Formats: sequence, structure tokens, C-alpha cells
Amino acid sequence: MREFAAIHTVFTPLALNYAGSLGLRDDAALLRLAQGQELVVTTDAISEGIHFLGTEAPEWIAKKLLRSNLSDLAAMGAKPECYFLSIMLPENTSDAWIARFGQGLAEDQALFGIQLAGGDTITTKGLFSASVTAMGTVKMGTSLRRSGAKAGNTIYVSGTLGDSALGLALLQERLGVEVSPVDSLWLKERYFLPHPRVGLGQKLVGVVSAAMDISDGLVQDLGHICAASGVGAVLHRKWLPLSDAAAHVIDKQDDWWQAVLAGGDDYELLFTVPATAQEQVKAIGEELHLKLTMVGEIVAGEGVSVQDEHGIDVTPERGGYSHAL
Amino acid sequence: MREFAAIHTVFTPLALNYAGSLGLRDDAALLRLAQGQELVVTTDAISEGIHFLGTEAPEWIAKKLLRSNLSDLAAMGAKPECYFLSIMLPENTSDAWIARFGQGLAEDQALFGIQLAGGDTITTKGLFSASVTAMGTVKMGTSLRRSGAKAGNTIYVSGTLGDSALGLALLQERLGVEVSPVDSLWLKERYFLPHPRVGLGQKLVGVVSAAMDISDGLVQDLGHICAASGVGAVLHRKWLPLSDAAAHVIDKQDDWWQAVLAGGDDYELLFTVPATAQEQVKAIGEELHLKLTMVGEIVAGEGVSVQDEHGIDVTPERGGYSHAL
Repeated sequence: MREFAAIHTVFTPLALNYAGSLGLRDDAALLRLAQGQELVVTTDAISEGIHFLGTEAPEWIAKKLLRSNLSDLAAMGAKPECYFLSIMLPENTSDAWIARFGQGLAEDQALFGIQLAGGDTITTKGLFSASVTAMGTVKMGTSLRRSGAKAGNTIYVSGTLGDSALGLALLQERLGVEVSPVDSLWLKERYFLPHPRVGLGQKLVGVVSAAMDISDGLVQDLGHICAASGVGAVLHRKWLPLSDAAAHVIDKQDDWWQAVLAGGDDYELLFTVPATAQEQVKAIGEELHLKLTMVGEIVAGEGVSVQDEHGIDVTPERGGYSHAL
Repeated sequence: MREFAAIHTVFTPLALNYAGSLGLRDDAALLRLAQGQELVVTTDAISEGIHFLGTEAPEWIAKKLLRSNLSDLAAMGAKPECYFLSIMLPENTSDAWIARFGQGLAEDQALFGIQLAGGDTITTKGLFSASVTAMGTVKMGTSLRRSGAKAGNTIYVSGTLGDSALGLALLQERLGVEVSPVDSLWLKERYFLPHPRVGLGQKLVGVVSAAMDISDGLVQDLGHICAASGVGAVLHRKWLPLSDAAAHVIDKQDDWWQAVLAGGDDYELLFTVPATAQEQVKAIGEELHLKLTMVGEIVAGEGVSVQDEHGIDVTPERGGYSHAL
């Protein structure tokens, strides 16, 4: 087995600011919780050719991996603390590639206030894959959850939807419509680099009745909230927040609503709001300079339906990606 | 992307006994610590053709993955609590294979008192790989560490050494000596299924001055304790604990001392004991019915040397495997 010379020089510095990492020099890391806190733990993995194309800058692959985990922490309302990284490197991986992967992590550690605490680097005879287990903290008993939505609550999403799925379609040359250079850049960037709503998640604690992040597609993910909460939901397609770029694509090809409703990789937060908290949500959006859009309402019953502006059912057959665990 | 039908039926039951897993149905798991406890966290990954042959029973692959993590918890003196699992499955993986992998986890969960708390299952276009992040607890400030060994301390190991490396050599048909069917079975079994010393690790808390698990080879791993503690070490080759099977091999081919000194995959505990704690260590071994053998002593200086029964230096050039993180 070949050793990767860059690994110690690349990864050890990423753990220096986290005392519990023990400098990556012991058998495990140590982690303490302040009194009244609990730990929120999530795991997300990626593999080449499935979750990323393989041609991306190594920095972007690293960031997408870390950010998909950060989005799960955001969905629970947690403050990011530390993460553990497993990477499976093909034998021909260059030290320069590893250094750039580490550079991406370093930049996002600074941006999101999270530290490397431990990990494992192994060789693979297959393609590159990697897994992160990320940890955050919440005040005990306050984490956002998928259960808790009640009939009469309104449904909100952050940011805009569908950009990432349209960006991927563009990269794979299956978009089928012309887009301007500006729109192209926007859509691709949104596919490569999600923006986990870490600040928003923490602000929503104690305010919303249920929350999750949209990673597999709006309709499918809202279905998870409905199932966990024992309710149904109605979405109004016309209310869904679109970027200019996505609106331009849909103007030309109506079928691309599918990307907005079920595209996946949005990494926006989806949450349900009781009538008493509408003003608070509005204030949070203004404070964070982040678009929060009402997109529908929770109803008695089960399942998710989507209506167009004429009240006609336009629920997609496929609501999102199929995943497990 | 294909969904693996077996996944929900296989993995969800493994998480049922851990309340913080939220039934694997939320964005993350929740974890609380009793007052005065701290968390010990480790990550170990495996990939096909590197860490296992690929022809093993799926149950054994699962167990080796989990047990290598449990061995790290043992090395820190931690009580196992829960783990997070990422698996990268080739597209042609059968549901039966996944079910048997899960069966292996289920058996070891029961054996070692650890629960699945979360994870991610992804498809890979490459070979199978997997990563576990395992968590245990210790009383705050008491975890075993690699630093702390002092000149005059004696050095101990649990169990026997070299069996796993000899088992692998046998499986790869490069052992070069005849072994009996009984010896063959013993050596191969020790390669396939390590025995993490989870009970021992917890008993050694407050007793020993330094500890780690031997996963990369005795000499190299003892070198880590020496480096972390600022000391040197002398090992007496004649004192090293051998199984009957390993002794038979070495009788026939003296070169196989290399497997004992630097073979890797032993997953035994290596620890240093102050003069005042010798009796306690003896009592712990008797209580656990586990062989604990004095193999050398910590000395002033640096580095590890190995002496044969005539006091001649037989330190191997290669002390173990090279790893990272």
C-alpha cells in the first residue's frame, strides 16, 4: 500500500484548532458537551461519477461533501462543531489533488466555523469516495425535527429551488434550451457549491413546527415531513421561488418545473410555520438577508399535492431521488 | 441511481434500540452525555482488495469494519455507545449480500453493546468500501492516551501477536511453510475476525500510563507511544506472546518473526504499566481470563529496539504499515 505524502501536511493543520482532535495523533478524538447541550450527528457520503462528475476542482468536491453534511446540521437547528473525514483515494491520486481537496476543506472550515476532529485515509482500487460524519450542538430538547407539522401551518422554503438540478442538466448537455452565459454560470455554480443554511437553521429553533433540508427534491422531502407529522400538504407551484436563471429556462420549456419540484441537491431549508410565528419568520429572513418564501400549507390527511395557478393538480409522478438510511 | 430494496429492512432494525437514531428518519441523530462523561470518537474505513480480500463472507467484512473501530474505542478505555455507517455499494450488489452484511452488524451489536445511530448508503461505480464512525464514553479526563509512558514502566500486550498477518500470508499462499489444518483455521480466523479488547480497555483506565491498539504492527505502534511520551522502549523478542500456530510457523521459518513484530491487524492492546500497578494488571488479566504479557520496558531516550534472547539487536527495518490520519 502506497502512502500519500501530502496527507499529514494537508490534514493535520485542519485539526489544530480543535483540542479534542488530539492532533490526530491518538486512537480517537475526545468531545465534551457544555451542560444542557446535546449533540447532533449526521453522515453523508459521496462517490465519483454518482454525486459529482469527477472533473470538478478538488476544492469543490471537498466543499460539496462538507456542505451536504452542514445542511443536515442546519436542518436540525444545530451549531456546527467538528467533523470526521474518511477518504478512499485511488492509488494514482496526486499529492497536488489531495492538497487542493484539503484547501477546500480549510476554506469551508473558516466559513462555517467547523473543525476537523479525526478521520481515516485509505487507498482504494476503485474510484474516489468519501464520507463525513459532522457534529453540531443544540440546547437539549430543542432540535428541529421532521415531525411536528400541523394542519393550518404554512410551508416555507429558503432561497430558490431547482437551480442545482438545472445546472447538472446543463453540464450533462441535456437541458435542451439555450441559456445566457450569466444564467449558465449561476446554475452550474449552484450545482457545484450548495449553500447550507446553517445560520437560518439555528434561528428557526423554537419558531417553526417542523424542518428538514431539501436534498432529494421538494415534493419527496415534504412527503417525509408529512409522514413524520401525520399530515398532508398542498404546494402552490406559482409561489415556488425561482432564480432568474431557472425562470428563464422554465419560460422556454415548461417541463423543467420537474427540476424545481423534484430536482434534488437544493440544500435549502423546508419548514412549517404556525400562524403565531409568521412575523418572526419574516423578521428572521430580513435579518439574514435571505429570501424565505411561503409555498403552501399543511392540511389534514396525507401526501403532497401540487397545484398550478388554476388549481389544477400538477403533482409530479416522481417526487425526488430514492435514497436509503 | 438504483435503490437497494434491502436497505430499509436491513438497517432500520439495527437502529431501533438507540433512541437518538430517531429511527433513521430525521436529518441527523441526537446524542446526550451523562454528566461528567465525555465522548470518544473514532473513524475507520475499509476498501475491497486492500483491507479485505473480497471473497469473505459479508458478515465477516461487516464485523471486521465494526471491530477495527471498537478496538480504537478500547484503546482509549471507552465504553461503546453507538456508530454511524457509510457504505459505498457497487451497483450490482445483491440484496442478499446486504442482508448478510447487516446480519454481521446485528450479531456484533449484541456482542459488544453498540447500536447503529445513523449513516448513509450510496452507490459507487467502483469497488465496495465502507466507513464507520464509532462513539463511546469515558469519565471526563480519564481516557487512555498514547502519551504518559515513563522510563521504568513495563510494556504489556494482550492476547497473542502475528496471527492475523500469518493468516493473511496463508490466504495469499505466500507463507512458504506447511501448517496443520488446526493451525490454518486459527490463523485465518484471526485475520478475518479481530477481537477488540473492549472490556480490557475499560479496566485499564486509571491503571496504566499509556495505551493504544496494535493495528499497524507492534514496533511501529509502540513507536507512536514513545514519540507521544518522549521516551524509548526495549522489546524482548523471546517474551512476545505467540499462539501455538504462530510458534509452529516460526519454528519452521525464523523470518516470520516479522509478522509478530510488524505484521499489523493484531487489534490487541499495547500498554505501559508503572511499578505500582503490576499487581493490578495481573488481577485484571485473571478476572477477564485474558492473557496479558510483559514484553519489554520503557527507557529514557527515543525509538524502539528489539533484542533476542542473547541481547542481540533484531529490530526490524520495517516496523509496520504506513497509514495516515
